[in-house]
Amino acid sequence: MYKLVLIRHGESVWNQENRFTGWQDVDLSEKGRAEALKGGKALREKGFSFDVAYTSVLKRAIKTLNFVLDEVDQVWLPVHKDWRLNERHYGALQGLNKAETAARHGEEQVKIWRRSYDTPPPPMEVSDPRHPSHDPRYKNVDAQLLPSNESLKDTVARFLPLWDGTIAPAVKSGKNVLIVAHGNSLRALMQHLEGMTQDEIMGVNMPTGIPMMYELDANLKVLKKEFIGDPDEVKAAIEAVANQGKAK
Amino acid sequence: MYKLVLIRHGESVWNQENRFTGWQDVDLSEKGRAEALKGGKALREKGFSFDVAYTSVLKRAIKTLNFVLDEVDQVWLPVHKDWRLNERHYGALQGLNKAETAARHGEEQVKIWRRSYDTPPPPMEVSDPRHPSHDPRYKNVDAQLLPSNESLKDTVARFLPLWDGTIAPAVKSGKNVLIVAHGNSLRALMQHLEGMTQDEIMGVNMPTGIPMMYELDANLKVLKKEFIGDPDEVKAAIEAVANQGKAK
Repeated sequence: MYKLVLIRHGESVWNQENRFTGWQDVDLSEKGRAEALKGGKALREKGFSFDVAYTSVLKRAIKTLNFVLDEVDQVWLPVHKDWRLNERHYGALQGLNKAETAARHGEEQVKIWRRSYDTPPPPMEVSDPRHPSHDPRYKNVDAQLLPSNESLKDTVARFLPLWDGTIAPAVKSGKNVLIVAHGNSLRALMQHLEGMTQDEIMGVNMPTGIPMMYELDANLKVLKKEFIGDPDEVKAAIEAVANQGKAK
Repeated sequence: MYKLVLIRHGESVWNQENRFTGWQDVDLSEKGRAEALKGGKALREKGFSFDVAYTSVLKRAIKTLNFVLDEVDQVWLPVHKDWRLNERHYGALQGLNKAETAARHGEEQVKIWRRSYDTPPPPMEVSDPRHPSHDPRYKNVDAQLLPSNESLKDTVARFLPLWDGTIAPAVKSGKNVLIVAHGNSLRALMQHLEGMTQDEIMGVNMPTGIPMMYELDANLKVLKKEFIGDPDEVKAAIEAVANQGKAK
């Protein structure tokens, strides 16, 4: 039986401002840092330790991981930062306030962009200085793989090669794996592991900073999943994230 | 022409207490965190950016690196944590107050253990729970390579395979490399790069938290070395580190 722990990064300063973030490299908010510390503390209290960690190349995830590793006293852990764990690329919507976008395009259109499985938002221009092709952190990535926008389906498609080629083999080798990533890259993983339909994964909202543990069998089928933390806080966090994206 | 930047970790809580630290995984002090931030800020102000970073598996170095990466806005950088960049293993002296050790063994003996090139301190017992063979961070390291004590010569011997096999090829491939490590693992590197004698390297004291840049030619011969920071602060820091280890 294998164990796998997932954590969605703590709140960022753009979560707070209700803006589409995607691949924009915004920092954790003060609340986000506190969430990360609390998640790490919950793991420490339950005696968790890890053999390897995977995260994105975005600082809100990496810093969440750093706080967690400090709490479990495993700062020395090997950490692999991979763009394929990044958040979904929100294309031309990145940086826009969600409520403003809803007022401009209609709440239904925003809901489609946020919740549709396969409808990507409008693309970011390649000439936009924020486009990933201009960012040195992606310079070793095949330019054809770098997105200008993504649906959740696209996110799943670029995440799965990392899972199949790297993370799943680490889990199967008996390593205790920790993944700190983003709402949609974690959805991609959860859909894959739990065999969820497109509609089912649309209804899943991962709370921020609360570790979720999977127990997996020899074929990586899910035997059990469990949040690590205070049950009331977990429930409140899931409800809070479900209320995001409504026009204000 | 290649560039290589070295940083010795900021002050640890045991530096402050004047205790032999070695492989003991003690944290940065408040002053050490401030030193790390200042070093990162100096690099940012000079426009430094990196392609890859190497550090030890000890948190005082890793956290110094994390602060530096945050300051240069490269939290996403690939980071390789390797035990061969650890501080010299101080054997049975680890944890002892330097002044107490000097009072017990004599200042001359302590000076030999600290400054002799090839005289190791007394070994740590393998049965000691602090011995590296009991620490999960070294479980993938060949047990025969794990030291119970080290002279600087021993430290050089275990560091050089990492340099020759991994870091030097990265430098020669044109990558801007950052190394955040410890007084003696950095001495090992400096002796090798600068072709210093045993006596010469004994006289070198690397200040904490102040980045040092090497410019290297195609054969990795040193063309120039330069501290990045305020010249008066650099001078004061070098003098401060030279005064350590005297019995109080």
